[in-house]
Amino acid sequence: MEHFYALNNMSKEELMSYIELTDDCRHEELVLDKQVFVSNLFFEPSTRTRMSFLVAEKKLGMEILDFQVEASSVKKGESLYDTVRTLQAIGSDVCVIRHESDNWLDDVSGIDMPLINGGAGAYAHPSQSMLDAYTIYKEYGRFEGLNIVIAGDIKHSRVAHSNIDMFKTLGANVYVSGAPEFMDENVSVPFVDMDEAVEMADVMMMLRIQHERHESDYGIDSYLNEYGLNLERESRMQDHAIIMHPAPINRGVEIDTRLVECDRSRIFNQMENGVYVRMAIIIKQLLNWRVIDEYQISKR
Amino acid sequence: MEHFYALNNMSKEELMSYIELTDDCRHEELVLDKQVFVSNLFFEPSTRTRMSFLVAEKKLGMEILDFQVEASSVKKGESLYDTVRTLQAIGSDVCVIRHESDNWLDDVSGIDMPLINGGAGAYAHPSQSMLDAYTIYKEYGRFEGLNIVIAGDIKHSRVAHSNIDMFKTLGANVYVSGAPEFMDENVSVPFVDMDEAVEMADVMMMLRIQHERHESDYGIDSYLNEYGLNLERESRMQDHAIIMHPAPINRGVEIDTRLVECDRSRIFNQMENGVYVRMAIIIKQLLNWRVIDEYQISKR
Amino acid sequence: MEHFYALNNMSKEELMSYIELTDDCRHEELVLDKQVFVSNLFFEPSTRTRMSFLVAEKKLGMEILDFQVEASSVKKGESLYDTVRTLQAIGSDVCVIRHESDNWLDDVSGIDMPLINGGAGAYAHPSQSMLDAYTIYKEYGRFEGLNIVIAGDIKHSRVAHSNIDMFKTLGANVYVSGAPEFMDENVSVPFVDMDEAVEMADVMMMLRIQHERHESDYGIDSYLNEYGLNLERESRMQDHAIIMHPAPINRGVEIDTRLVECDRSRIFNQMENGVYVRMAIIIKQLLNWRVIDEYQISKR
Repeated sequence: MEHFYALNNMSKEELMSYIELTDDCRHEELVLDKQVFVSNLFFEPSTRTRMSFLVAEKKLGMEILDFQVEASSVKKGESLYDTVRTLQAIGSDVCVIRHESDNWLDDVSGIDMPLINGGAGAYAHPSQSMLDAYTIYKEYGRFEGLNIVIAGDIKHSRVAHSNIDMFKTLGANVYVSGAPEFMDENVSVPFVDMDEAVEMADVMMMLRIQHERHESDYGIDSYLNEYGLNLERESRMQDHAIIMHPAPINRGVEIDTRLVECDRSRIFNQMENGVYVRMAIIIKQLLNWRVIDEYQISKR
Repeated sequence: MEHFYALNNMSKEELMSYIELTDDCRHEELVLDKQVFVSNLFFEPSTRTRMSFLVAEKKLGMEILDFQVEASSVKKGESLYDTVRTLQAIGSDVCVIRHESDNWLDDVSGIDMPLINGGAGAYAHPSQSMLDAYTIYKEYGRFEGLNIVIAGDIKHSRVAHSNIDMFKTLGANVYVSGAPEFMDENVSVPFVDMDEAVEMADVMMMLRIQHERHESDYGIDSYLNEYGLNLERESRMQDHAIIMHPAPINRGVEIDTRLVECDRSRIFNQMENGVYVRMAIIIKQLLNWRVIDEYQISKR
Repeated sequence: MEHFYALNNMSKEELMSYIELTDDCRHEELVLDKQVFVSNLFFEPSTRTRMSFLVAEKKLGMEILDFQVEASSVKKGESLYDTVRTLQAIGSDVCVIRHESDNWLDDVSGIDMPLINGGAGAYAHPSQSMLDAYTIYKEYGRFEGLNIVIAGDIKHSRVAHSNIDMFKTLGANVYVSGAPEFMDENVSVPFVDMDEAVEMADVMMMLRIQHERHESDYGIDSYLNEYGLNLERESRMQDHAIIMHPAPINRGVEIDTRLVECDRSRIFNQMENGVYVRMAIIIKQLLNWRVIDEYQISKR
């Protein structure tokens, strides 16, 4: 049985099955008919991902153990393995984990409970990738032939890494853009200049610039005009093209604040979709690990 | 549609309608027949207000997103607007906010979701004011002609500011008392000396003295005897008169510790009433904003 | 009416009645038919105990007020009494408290609500003691004649203190073992050397060594070999003998890491049992204090 950790090895069919189940979660109010305990273990600050999982879990009628790392024995030096094994022992049926390590799954190998990756260092953030995919699919109904430009700090972004492979598997043309020093040599998709990117993109996927990290290199204003999505560039986008961003947004850095809620922005739709995606991810893991069977899912 | 932010503009009729609905919430176990998500966003420490909203929400059968500011992207510098907009996007139907700013509502203008003020800097704490009003109404069945003395640090108290206007609107005679340097020039109600106040008051409403702020000026003992409610002053109160305090109490500073649970104290009754008041506030906002209709409220 | 604070005064019959109710909670999915509010007040970090109470409460269908000490008025200096009295006023029916003081119950005397001790300084941790007892009873079906060795830092362990009296009351032969400077003169049970202990014990109950406290005295390796449960010692244990540990475990200090999940380890079973023990404790207090009656307990 596999944990939900990364999308690398997922086939197109598998990815599409998640997207379809997400659509079911969106249109039907699915709820579990069994008392199922989920633990949320967030070792890094998070608004969107943590809250999104919480809403997904509550919609499914699950019992939630919201693990507060700060008030836990992790402070006494308890390992991730012992923490997760403890949660399982006290009755957790599934566990959502966000951790600063790229490879936290290695630390919990052997745990006999489905684990869901809520973010692993700079490596993978598969539930975010999947909500990005779902948002695009809802817009276009396909991935083949779409030009998706991921723009920003590719090097330090777990979203970028997860997404590039996934979009390629799904059949899209993926490009990266942004300041040259943010590019990642290990990423095998073409680079396009922002001025070119906005004209060819069906999807402009902006990433957060960690300006606390890079402020010395760029003034904030100059980043927006050199590499960000400003009003002028937006005006040259195709009529049907959309803007995405995983948030939190640095308004005025990677994107003009006036574009955050403009007509072609899907930024807050992404967040809404994230809830349904996470419901689908949870349901799949519970079914795969036989925590529930299909007859234990009904409509509210 | 209006948020629940301050009581300044509320008419007597409107205030009374909240008091009546509070009474319904007290005597009938009202519960919502719909899955309604509420987010609690507390940017300042709070026991009473936060817990009181929690109990109110749970009694109503709501789904609660308890936002932990410390573990959130607010730490990455996310704005209040983006945080609240995110909560709405992921499915929050209503949001309770406590924030150190007097004017936090300005920062979230345009949000299409009912917002409830759980405390705004030194400006307003309307759910506290309303529970004070309800507590007095339950005692006397009226406000007209009652002498209400608010005693303590008027200048720094959001409770005082909210209450003075409200009690005047409701028809009571409002006075302030306490150390002269705690008085607020912008408050337009008469000052009375504590020794006079205790004899005329129907309600002695004591405020918390922030002794961490003022200790240098007064010894703790001397404050109680000069301006606080000590045993001697209490003995001169009218038979029917009651003592109130929003808590947390500085026992032995603004009030003798032996008076905290004396017969005429309504301090813990206030807290109990706070739950029903907050149920009423939530129900009103959900109805006003059409999150629910009246048929979706039933009795447990 | 009594709070659930320590096991000192409990008779064998009373202890056995908890063990029997725990067994009921294990085999039948008991749930309360009434909306009962429980507050969890943890003033010290805790994974196991806090989470275990949470799961127990959720299994019973209770409404949970999870009090975050860090985000509360305790930070403004509010006393334990006022905090607990407040929780009662806003509707809490029962309260679980973990506090660094040995005698926190003294600070809340007069509170008219059942209080459950989730850990009191170095003095008592009765829910842990009871889960230890239940785990042993499940294994052997009796206490009479069993040799139970508690090994480790007896002096600083609340588990040891609670357990020694309890196991004696239940009829077991209790021994202590470990480094001489960890022994407690006030404990009136015989000391046995670890090499002797492993051969005579039916139950080896290892305690956590606070190596942050003692590291200067022992190298970590040398502790394991001098006083801990290493592989060699384990090989000399009786076939039927079991290993217990309250956790968190210092792997490689008091116990070889390879023994943590070995066949004779009941360490994670203890955690599982802890949930049912806590359900039983809560049910007993609710019945004793007449928060519920027996007809308000049913099966899921």
